[in-house]
Amino acid sequence: MKLNCDMGESLGAWTVGNDAQIMPYIDMANIACGFHASDPDTMSTTVVLAKQHGVSIGAHPGYADLQGFGRRSIPHTHAQITHLILYQVGALQGICRLHQANVDYIKPHGALYNDMMKDVALFSSVIEAARQLQLPLMVLATDNADYLHIAQRANVTLIHEGFVDRRYTKGKQLAPRTLKGAVMTELDEVKHQAQALISGSTFSSIDNAPIQVVADTLCVHGDGSNALIFAQHLRDLINEQAK
Amino acid sequence: MKLNCDMGESLGAWTVGNDAQIMPYIDMANIACGFHASDPDTMSTTVVLAKQHGVSIGAHPGYADLQGFGRRSIPHTHAQITHLILYQVGALQGICRLHQANVDYIKPHGALYNDMMKDVALFSSVIEAARQLQLPLMVLATDNADYLHIAQRANVTLIHEGFVDRRYTKGKQLAPRTLKGAVMTELDEVKHQAQALISGSTFSSIDNAPIQVVADTLCVHGDGSNALIFAQHLRDLINEQAK
Amino acid sequence: MKLNCDMGESLGAWTVGNDAQIMPYIDMANIACGFHASDPDTMSTTVVLAKQHGVSIGAHPGYADLQGFGRRSIPHTHAQITHLILYQVGALQGICRLHQANVDYIKPHGALYNDMMKDVALFSSVIEAARQLQLPLMVLATDNADYLHIAQRANVTLIHEGFVDRRYTKGKQLAPRTLKGAVMTELDEVKHQAQALISGSTFSSIDNAPIQVVADTLCVHGDGSNALIFAQHLRDLINEQAK
Amino acid sequence: MKLNCDMGESLGAWTVGNDAQIMPYIDMANIACGFHASDPDTMSTTVVLAKQHGVSIGAHPGYADLQGFGRRSIPHTHAQITHLILYQVGALQGICRLHQANVDYIKPHGALYNDMMKDVALFSSVIEAARQLQLPLMVLATDNADYLHIAQRANVTLIHEGFVDRRYTKGKQLAPRTLKGAVMTELDEVKHQAQALISGSTFSSIDNAPIQVVADTLCVHGDGSNALIFAQHLRDLINEQAK
Repeated sequence: MKLNCDMGESLGAWTVGNDAQIMPYIDMANIACGFHASDPDTMSTTVVLAKQHGVSIGAHPGYADLQGFGRRSIPHTHAQITHLILYQVGALQGICRLHQANVDYIKPHGALYNDMMKDVALFSSVIEAARQLQLPLMVLATDNADYLHIAQRANVTLIHEGFVDRRYTKGKQLAPRTLKGAVMTELDEVKHQAQALISGSTFSSIDNAPIQVVADTLCVHGDGSNALIFAQHLRDLINEQAK
Repeated sequence: MKLNCDMGESLGAWTVGNDAQIMPYIDMANIACGFHASDPDTMSTTVVLAKQHGVSIGAHPGYADLQGFGRRSIPHTHAQITHLILYQVGALQGICRLHQANVDYIKPHGALYNDMMKDVALFSSVIEAARQLQLPLMVLATDNADYLHIAQRANVTLIHEGFVDRRYTKGKQLAPRTLKGAVMTELDEVKHQAQALISGSTFSSIDNAPIQVVADTLCVHGDGSNALIFAQHLRDLINEQAK
Repeated sequence: MKLNCDMGESLGAWTVGNDAQIMPYIDMANIACGFHASDPDTMSTTVVLAKQHGVSIGAHPGYADLQGFGRRSIPHTHAQITHLILYQVGALQGICRLHQANVDYIKPHGALYNDMMKDVALFSSVIEAARQLQLPLMVLATDNADYLHIAQRANVTLIHEGFVDRRYTKGKQLAPRTLKGAVMTELDEVKHQAQALISGSTFSSIDNAPIQVVADTLCVHGDGSNALIFAQHLRDLINEQAK
Repeated sequence: MKLNCDMGESLGAWTVGNDAQIMPYIDMANIACGFHASDPDTMSTTVVLAKQHGVSIGAHPGYADLQGFGRRSIPHTHAQITHLILYQVGALQGICRLHQANVDYIKPHGALYNDMMKDVALFSSVIEAARQLQLPLMVLATDNADYLHIAQRANVTLIHEGFVDRRYTKGKQLAPRTLKGAVMTELDEVKHQAQALISGSTFSSIDNAPIQVVADTLCVHGDGSNALIFAQHLRDLINEQAK
């Protein structure tokens, strides 16, 4: 079980997140690629930081929307989605050359991630980019046969991601943030769901159904005042499990 | 002697140039990378077109300045110049993956190209990007020992470019566009200078000194009403020479 | 009956449209404000051109989306829509100061225009901007009571626009471009619908129902190879009617 | 003597500054206009905050350069400078309409401010915008006869600004930040220079010449950990003087 976190979301003089503090506790850094956040200089700094801590580097492409931070869906044709991702992952690969580092996987950001999980044709466009780049793709942990089949046919490895601070529906989708209780902020609650995800045991959906989510990696958020504490606790939980 | 041309400088709904008409006559396409012109979709279309005609693909990175079309110098630190180029070349390499194509060389655009030829430290920053990417760099044909030495030490091949429609100073720099007569628009004049560049013979600088410019490639412009005619004539001149 | 046309949609070095040719034939110029097209310099040039021909100046705000030319819907809150429009109209008013010109009305562009006609809450947000600016708002000619009521309550004058080259549904909406026959390209067809709109008589919807559309202004397109010819013919039709 | 401060420099999800904390202590808020920082929503929020505290609203236009935060000089023609400012000030005026507020003055930002003080032709282009908008212009306190004459001829009021945490040259220019000691960070030093500026007495330039700077307003910085403390102390100094 790996811990992944969005990193490198600053932009020029605007800084967000606690990258330097969080990086020591994670395994995989999803690095923004300049369309929803970041810039070539921030990307370079973030790659260096990831490398210092032996953290795997993922490209974190998003819609071209600085003002909306990539959280707004922007209509694209399927071909445009593939281009959007190839461009951004390639750009991060270019920056990685300077530091003898590699991009190890792709995780779409924000609205692009959500759209990918809702629209199988859009997912196929993302897979096409991953296939050409021969890189694994991180997705919301799924047992949807269409998704698994498309990825398999393209020979793209899926990295299944679980969320520790978001409640799930019984259909194993994330409950919308607008739903009361959908976002968990209490450490105990978060640890409880994390424990279930780590051990592969069942836990309660937001509508009180028992669900089991099989995940390869857990997402931790790098911003917010509790980010560091949460990252430390999740790290400990995973390390204990690994013993 | 190769013919190179800036290509793929459209942006979304805005189209410029006559890419489809010019591509058959050139050897090397300098493809814009989204910072001063182009977008991921235009880049993809342009790569396909270059491949159809067996034209070598070059990355054409520029300053991030759509409104100024990359023709305005924007101050950067040396590290930022390296990042700027790595990002854009990497992005084009990403797009190339979709079409089983490769980026063969780098040619900076507009103000970045001019700044590189005026500022040896900035040139070093460009060379650093080329070194990491292991790609040749196209420059204004030069016998400046500093430039040659920096490139050699980094093991970066320089592709020396000559201009057929711009007058040179006796120092083998391009005469500024603002100087009367600096830009040649008559086909005969252009062919005359092209002939000298192709055969390696001397020709007159704008200040009437005999100069010799040793070039590997000639630049042809893809926009303007005469672009196609000029490209055809230059192609013929080169083909005759090659016999 | 007035003729309106989108104008000033160039961007830096990229030019589109035939503004100088079309301007003499129209009454109202919808001038892009820098978010989906244009820039402060193009805006200034376009204002000068409109003034030379005694053409009324409208602000033509759009979503912030150069690559998509404002043709893609981008989610906004209602307050954000109001801000988006106030910002862009204000910017054009600023440019107008230089030429002792005024912004006379607002016409949202592309996806923003379509969204406004589909979503009454979004329309209210646009009306709020028009109300604060005390400017009329151009809309797709409508007899929808909700729309009329909202505008009236805010004391905002609506300018009802008819389309001469687009087929309507029987509900007096524009038939989607994707529908076969939805866009008319034959001059005779266009003139036929224009004649009906000018005289206020009925014409056929795309689904062959007789409809009547009461319009204050007709939209003519400024790009495309036939733009000038269409503008001239529409001008003639209107002038004849006015006799 | 008024206290002015840059405000509203956030962008979408990125926040900077301590606007809500600083606003109560200042008289004039220089509000960013979306080119180097801010966006229509942030502008609206900032106008509301200024109004709540009875703070005068200034437009703070900058070069179009989010990544560089407007701190990089970008070449513009004189006409382009005028357009750049008219556009941005107009945009803020548009936003102000929503809150029954007015833009009271213009203060260019960052590199645009510096360029204006170094280049009299560029200053004239700024004055032209101020003239058309009939707004005062804030400048680095100057007794340069050319500057005073140009402003007077255009009937534009200059607001002379003094800096409390920057050392001056004996020519009454700001010593470059790169010079050792050019930026003062000690409260006592800052208060000492502030006292001189408030009372109109002489103080030492960085090269130890006695200089006198006649200022209408003092600039306080809104970011940095000491921003609030400095603002409070400067407020107290000014209030004491006013007794």
